[in-house]
Amino acid sequence: MSTAVATAADPLLQTDFIKEMVKQMRALDSYGTYDGWPTERILAPFVLTKEQRRAIPVIGDPDDVTLSRVKAFYNAVAALIEKECGLMAVPMINITHEGFGRALITVGKLVVMDRTVRDVHRFGFDSLSKMKDEADKVLAVALEIVGKYSEVAGL
Amino acid sequence: MSTAVATAADPLLQTDFIKEMVKQMRALDSYGTYDGWPTERILAPFVLTKEQRRAIPVIGDPDDVTLSRVKAFYNAVAALIEKECGLMAVPMINITHEGFGRALITVGKLVVMDRTVRDVHRFGFDSLSKMKDEADKVLAVALEIVGKYSEVAGL
Repeated sequence: MSTAVATAADPLLQTDFIKEMVKQMRALDSYGTYDGWPTERILAPFVLTKEQRRAIPVIGDPDDVTLSRVKAFYNAVAALIEKECGLMAVPMINITHEGFGRALITVGKLVVMDRTVRDVHRFGFDSLSKMKDEADKVLAVALEIVGKYSEVAGL
Repeated sequence: MSTAVATAADPLLQTDFIKEMVKQMRALDSYGTYDGWPTERILAPFVLTKEQRRAIPVIGDPDDVTLSRVKAFYNAVAALIEKECGLMAVPMINITHEGFGRALITVGKLVVMDRTVRDVHRFGFDSLSKMKDEADKVLAVALEIVGKYSEVAGL
């Protein structure tokens, strides 16, 4: 009998992206709380159903824990871009107020991702697989323009 | 008899950059405190002698007023870039902690300025003229690379 719940045998959990996400989350875990936790548990806060998202108020500034998750996601995406193209990819996230902001990844003098982020309070994905799809989408576009404008990316 | 103090007749105060700086500062002035103030007085906080700078402690996070000045400066530079090249220039400033951070200006998908900023607490210039020199330097480099990589800047 198969279930929808991710298990250790799930090939998704063996992908570079999910491994990188775990690495990013462990880097934030100063007190070693996650030691011995399985991947699904470490990444659980990234999975929110539509109902869970709707239940989170978007009033005021998002808290630091939420912001650190947004950063972990874009850091992981940048790490993948760097791994694939061999050039340093630098993420920069600016959440101004009320959960609005801009997320950017640069390679050399090339902007490979530029996004307006909003309602950061509700940052999350329907599933880990959806999160990986999102990362893959950014990665594909980034690698395409790095290839096209390699001179600028190499500056 | 001439003095080193800037006066209303000073051609420096008539430059696009200084006018833009005043515009940026007035935009921050929600209560109209600067109404009727001369340019030199509005921009006075940007002028710090070496001794004044040294006297400012660099411990902890810089205050919001200092941060708003740093933003005003890079906003003004971006506005000049935009005016000169006719393409939208977007500044992004990220001060992480203890006054360290990164300031970036993008035109299209091109990074036209990318700076590490440090000791933001002590942000200031020897004179308004030195401040303009600094802005001119950034502007010249930015326009050069926009010209060179116009396709990326137009994305």
